[in-house]
Amino acid sequence: MFFQKEIETMPRKELEALQLAKLKETVAYCYNKVPFYHQKLTEAGVGDGSRIRQLSDVQYIPFTTKEDFRNNYPFGLNAAPMKDIVRIHASSGTTGKPTVGVYTKKDIDVWSDCVARVAVAGGVTDEDIIQISFGYGLFTGALGLHFGLEKIGATVIPASSGNTEKQMMMFRDFGVTGLVATPSYALYLSEAVKEAGYPLSDYSLRLGILGSEPCTPEMRAQIEANLGIYVSDNYGMTELGGPGVSGDCPERDGMHFAEDHFLPEIIDSATGERLREGGKGELVVTTLSRQGMPVLRYRTKDITSITYEPCPCGRTHARMSKTAGRTDDMMIIKGVNVFPTQIESVLVGMPYIGPHYQIVLRRVNFRDTLEIRVELADAELLERYQELQELQRSMHDRLKSVLGLEAKVTLVQPKTLERFQGKAKRILDLRNEPQA
Amino acid sequence: MFFQKEIETMPRKELEALQLAKLKETVAYCYNKVPFYHQKLTEAGVGDGSRIRQLSDVQYIPFTTKEDFRNNYPFGLNAAPMKDIVRIHASSGTTGKPTVGVYTKKDIDVWSDCVARVAVAGGVTDEDIIQISFGYGLFTGALGLHFGLEKIGATVIPASSGNTEKQMMMFRDFGVTGLVATPSYALYLSEAVKEAGYPLSDYSLRLGILGSEPCTPEMRAQIEANLGIYVSDNYGMTELGGPGVSGDCPERDGMHFAEDHFLPEIIDSATGERLREGGKGELVVTTLSRQGMPVLRYRTKDITSITYEPCPCGRTHARMSKTAGRTDDMMIIKGVNVFPTQIESVLVGMPYIGPHYQIVLRRVNFRDTLEIRVELADAELLERYQELQELQRSMHDRLKSVLGLEAKVTLVQPKTLERFQGKAKRILDLRNEPQA
Repeated sequence: MFFQKEIETMPRKELEALQLAKLKETVAYCYNKVPFYHQKLTEAGVGDGSRIRQLSDVQYIPFTTKEDFRNNYPFGLNAAPMKDIVRIHASSGTTGKPTVGVYTKKDIDVWSDCVARVAVAGGVTDEDIIQISFGYGLFTGALGLHFGLEKIGATVIPASSGNTEKQMMMFRDFGVTGLVATPSYALYLSEAVKEAGYPLSDYSLRLGILGSEPCTPEMRAQIEANLGIYVSDNYGMTELGGPGVSGDCPERDGMHFAEDHFLPEIIDSATGERLREGGKGELVVTTLSRQGMPVLRYRTKDITSITYEPCPCGRTHARMSKTAGRTDDMMIIKGVNVFPTQIESVLVGMPYIGPHYQIVLRRVNFRDTLEIRVELADAELLERYQELQELQRSMHDRLKSVLGLEAKVTLVQPKTLERFQGKAKRILDLRNEPQA
Repeated sequence: MFFQKEIETMPRKELEALQLAKLKETVAYCYNKVPFYHQKLTEAGVGDGSRIRQLSDVQYIPFTTKEDFRNNYPFGLNAAPMKDIVRIHASSGTTGKPTVGVYTKKDIDVWSDCVARVAVAGGVTDEDIIQISFGYGLFTGALGLHFGLEKIGATVIPASSGNTEKQMMMFRDFGVTGLVATPSYALYLSEAVKEAGYPLSDYSLRLGILGSEPCTPEMRAQIEANLGIYVSDNYGMTELGGPGVSGDCPERDGMHFAEDHFLPEIIDSATGERLREGGKGELVVTTLSRQGMPVLRYRTKDITSITYEPCPCGRTHARMSKTAGRTDDMMIIKGVNVFPTQIESVLVGMPYIGPHYQIVLRRVNFRDTLEIRVELADAELLERYQELQELQRSMHDRLKSVLGLEAKVTLVQPKTLERFQGKAKRILDLRNEPQA
């Protein structure tokens, strides 16, 4: 089950020769087309990359960070003229400004290939009817999977997220064979299917292609049992163009990179040094094919390890283990990136409230919930219920507007939240706690 | 400004010869591939259509109605095997079941052509940066425009709907030149842009391609003035494959059908008789190119008229005037089809409430709002506020789940809503009332 067998099983020597050629091309392209990279590469003495002799020379190239994306918002990292750009995607950034990705026609084509590989490796064929329950829009997940699955020739149902009853109705009525969703939404849906009480024989579901947030083995097992399906996982992010960077093969023992399009490394996130094979550290990725927005050594902040060992599935491309946390305080809630700074930006300047707040994450019915506990400035205020209700609603609406997420706002009495010496502990992540 | 000039300006004689050939093909295709049509065509004596001699013979073909879609839910009207279907779209039906449309690869291609014609006629070029603020997902509007605009080579921003602040931020930051939205959302956004206070010179907006609900000349003028843009209108519906059925040319004196793909007629909705050119009645459309779901003489329930007069723009395809209401009680709210039966299906069986309710539509800040006034069964109940709050929330959530729309639920005292002899007047449409 391969989408592009020749490439996916290419001997490593050939693959690495291809990577080296594309790395040199990419460095020259960045040097010539993106002033930001021109300056960085010049300062680092790498120049247009013509002196790069081996893949490990990538270590002399400076890193690109989330901050570089922010500082170059929106189009400072573009390498192609806007006339050649056919799509713009975006995800939440660390501040109010989103992280932007731009695509040429060829970028969309390569992206669709990468996604198609992941989907075919997960068992999708042109006879499948796939319901995409990612939220459609600026988010790369939904349209990324959509184009990849249409490329395979599968039937795509652009269900988007939410509306559980309708999702389940379509499962049954449309003979849906595959689900694309975040692991947490898939788990939630699988519980809803169980509760709805129809026998599994009323469903034709046989596989799930999950992604955009980490999926634990326990979640996977639960989803598979509830729906009677086979689940595979995949990995990607807006900065690298979206999903399709890596994905499970039938062995499910590490996700294969699309190494002809991405060059991965693992570094010590403190020193920036490259680690030996198998070492656990921060994933760094260089894009090898992107025209619209090539990225050199992007620090993903995801902690993982890489193996180049041959895989029984026949694929020769390197595998990454499931991510084991992040180096920053970004939260992924229902597949949406959320930074505490975004929440703070909403609260600042609101009337009646003090400077103290706490972010509480829970998993209720297998679904992420986000609660913001905000302290009132004055004890007597709780009396003024109606005004407060209005306040609560206003905070809720503005949070939703900024985050693109539903958040419950709870008002609590002054001085009831814990105070901290030094850095405040604002995040209480209870998602892996047993449910009450 | 044509996307397919040769077809769009084809002499009528040739066009009608093409339509006749395609009509005969379509009838034979339906007769051979769809048992529902086989039976209907046999009963009507039309058979496989081989005796059709002229376009007006279409009158001997039986109508297809919304009820036929419902009775054949989900795939009874499919003419192509599921293996050839690459996409499924859906919109709200009259009951809990959606109206389904299925597409082959060629259907998507033809659809994209039709949308591209509308967009190019509205002024879009490959240099435009277009923000699509339709809700992405099962709704045909967003993905229909998306594929059509990518075909032109424009830069597409899949913004989806909602999150006004972010919409405006993207307008400014991304140099957006065109907006795709419903007229009511465009009007709302245009007011928000005015209020935000940035000078129009901070924006690069120059055009709007609006659709999926009727746009009055007053709305259009207001949107154009607020944003300093040129607005064109277009028409379509899920049953006919989505947007692209007809659209404004630069004359904006009627929307040109894509007559090589659609055969339009106007009938007296009471008698079913065809009207003479220019007569006002119900629009009936036969698809001439669809493979996945061909439709014979679909009764759209939209009231309009058609002219075949030559248009100064050079297009030879017939034009329809703006729709002047509908023959049923379907409401279009923010581009979403809503039937009173859907609302009733949510209310039935809820505790505490009586059988009386009223649907109130308003336009607040140029945005459609939907309020459901529900009468309580018992006067003392209003005391039990918290329980009622829970009830209200539950109704709201279930309505949102069924309609895909935010609806405010108001509880009012028993016996305060008007009673009716005969058919109850449940809809109070105040959208065209002056705002308080």
